[in-house]
Amino acid sequence: MTTVYAIENQKGGCGKTTTSIQIADYAAHVANKKTLVIDVDPSGNLTKTFLGTEVVKRDLFTFLMNRPKSTEGIDAFQKVDENLYMLGSTKQLNGINMQSDFDAPLMLREALEPFKWLFDVIIIDGCPEITQLTHNLFAAADKVIVPMNPGSYSVMGLADLQNEISFVRKMYNPNLKIHGLLLSNIDKNTKAEQAINEMAKTCCDLLDTKVFDNTVYHTTVINDAQIAGIPIRKYKKSHKVNMVYTELCNEIFKEEGWK
Amino acid sequence: MTTVYAIENQKGGCGKTTTSIQIADYAAHVANKKTLVIDVDPSGNLTKTFLGTEVVKRDLFTFLMNRPKSTEGIDAFQKVDENLYMLGSTKQLNGINMQSDFDAPLMLREALEPFKWLFDVIIIDGCPEITQLTHNLFAAADKVIVPMNPGSYSVMGLADLQNEISFVRKMYNPNLKIHGLLLSNIDKNTKAEQAINEMAKTCCDLLDTKVFDNTVYHTTVINDAQIAGIPIRKYKKSHKVNMVYTELCNEIFKEEGWK
Repeated sequence: MTTVYAIENQKGGCGKTTTSIQIADYAAHVANKKTLVIDVDPSGNLTKTFLGTEVVKRDLFTFLMNRPKSTEGIDAFQKVDENLYMLGSTKQLNGINMQSDFDAPLMLREALEPFKWLFDVIIIDGCPEITQLTHNLFAAADKVIVPMNPGSYSVMGLADLQNEISFVRKMYNPNLKIHGLLLSNIDKNTKAEQAINEMAKTCCDLLDTKVFDNTVYHTTVINDAQIAGIPIRKYKKSHKVNMVYTELCNEIFKEEGWK
Repeated sequence: MTTVYAIENQKGGCGKTTTSIQIADYAAHVANKKTLVIDVDPSGNLTKTFLGTEVVKRDLFTFLMNRPKSTEGIDAFQKVDENLYMLGSTKQLNGINMQSDFDAPLMLREALEPFKWLFDVIIIDGCPEITQLTHNLFAAADKVIVPMNPGSYSVMGLADLQNEISFVRKMYNPNLKIHGLLLSNIDKNTKAEQAINEMAKTCCDLLDTKVFDNTVYHTTVINDAQIAGIPIRKYKKSHKVNMVYTELCNEIFKEEGWK
């Protein structure tokens, strides 16, 4: 069974891409599992991080438009490195938001179906707004991870996220689970930390989920790794935040039974 | 002359709303000028900050759809408090992105035209994606302020922003000026600070603009004020970051000749 993880909170700047990178890096290179990452954000930050200046050869928009019916080997995806493959994003992806066929929200799920067996895990980096692409993301996913950070703006939209998930469950994907809330970029021992902890509890009730035990505290190393364009494990393995991400990934993937 | 300031960088979480709040608060309550704020982001975070739990009575979508031809007094806008008025955002605003008439990018500019004389300054909080709303924002603006923060993601999209601004200049608004880049949420004395300073220089060449002298450094007070839902001046007037914002606003509004 391949599990599809969606990283989503429609507020921009809450850590979706950073989280997707760390989780994908862990799955492919620490757990040594065949991993596919999909970038659903037309601005393509995840794509640029994994591909650098390389051209996007296998992009999500083309994949969704063509929906190849047979697996034709691994060539449908772009190899990043050992164990890690991707479907990159391009600006054309905005075109998906113009699709209005009744089955438009199922494009991603149907396109992935013949290829899922090739991977142990699929990780999808989400969108900064609720659009047709978000429908596709949730229709294709098994579990959603919701990054939240301080300030109230990344929390304000959670009621909308809950509405969206309820809608997708009713229409297309009854088993969609909210895997957990991830507290990210939190300043330790501040009013904001207390406030976000309280907000998180309220959100857990609303979303019927839990907060992950491992909190990612604010550290400049995350920005430095982002500027260097590499996962934190490669940027500074010995840094505490790398250990936090490793423990977090153990938590996230606990149910996978990977051997 | 009323100057229209747009706060825009299509990356989410780079500080657009925080910047808009501080600037509007300064204009209305420190400089005592008649100020209109417009929330162009359908997620409505600025609106929630200024209106709290109050209902949005005068929303931007309705205003754009009706485009009242006469000023009918100040009733077209919602009064926040002395000197400060707003056009709030609602989710309906996404409907503007579906408009495809040839003059759809000019809706905001034309709708504002009969009302501009009522205000000394108009501040528009931008969108997290480049859409029809962004065209409207740039077509209506005189000056654009671009917040940038650490990590490379808020910088990566600047080439797209430049393309968009060039397009709008050519089509609708030849005098649109990029007022400056605002370095926001920067960690002092870190690699990220060095990197962002270097990136900012490159961006200034690209965008033919300057970096504002006042940099907003990372402080938890900004998050605390955000959670409290009030401008920093009201939250903690004595804090250094409030003084930084005051100096920044002096810089931003220098050319206004306010008396």
